Amino acid sequence: MRPIPADVDAFLRGPNPAIVATLQADGSPHSVATWYDWEDGLVLLNMDATRKRLEHLRRDPRVSLTVLQKDDWYSHVSLFGAVERLEDDADLSDIDRLAIRYTGNPYRNRRSPRVSAWMRPESWHQWPRA
Amino acid sequence: MRPIPADVDAFLRGPNPAIVATLQADGSPHSVATWYDWEDGLVLLNMDATRKRLEHLRRDPRVSLTVLQKDDWYSHVSLFGAVERLEDDADLSDIDRLAIRYTGNPYRNRRSPRVSAWMRPESWHQWPRA
Repeated sequence: MRPIPADVDAFLRGPNPAIVATLQADGSPHSVATWYDWEDGLVLLNMDATRKRLEHLRRDPRVSLTVLQKDDWYSHVSLFGAVERLEDDADLSDIDRLAIRYTGNPYRNRRSPRVSAWMRPESWHQWPRA
Repeated sequence: MRPIPADVDAFLRGPNPAIVATLQADGSPHSVATWYDWEDGLVLLNMDATRKRLEHLRRDPRVSLTVLQKDDWYSHVSLFGAVERLEDDADLSDIDRLAIRYTGNPYRNRRSPRVSAWMRPESWHQWPRA
């Protein structure tokens, strides 16, 4: 992969609006808003265990994440890759990490099981071009 | 398709941040920020004629559009469907329509050819659930 420059890496580390696209059973694209975190070149996503997109990722791990600049949404970075690891978030530490990152508080719902997905980007795109 | 209620229709008519997901040649998802318009149940998208996602749409017209609420980005509506018509925007009237909708002004670049895509949703998703 073309290396991610420092300014893009710094941008991805912020709690920005993001949209994740996965593949439905028939191969069509499916996009929704999502929280994410960015650590050592991997993207953390976390889903309620009943989410459709978890089915999608179990069937086909390929994923696209678009991260928007908060005050100028058309400026964005998209990461294209695949989920390399799905794991139960048994103690809710990953969803708490995301909730604290985005809201300042731990996640409210302590009853519903959650699953974490770690995505490794294989390519990326920046707009406007650097 | 489950009918789109009046409040969702009204939301889609606003100049909201949006992300379009298309399919790359290998079937993997590809998402980027986009302008759109919403008219009579169809989505208007418009691209520079050299854009990769135009190649994607010519190969496989299936597309997903996620529209975010501006002041609360996690609240969103996603439309899933396919582009039923691609047409040259020869007089730039479609990109002007989008530029005026989002910026108040006609599109600045008058030299680069543009193409419009009309997407028909086949299903949709709202978060938070109504």
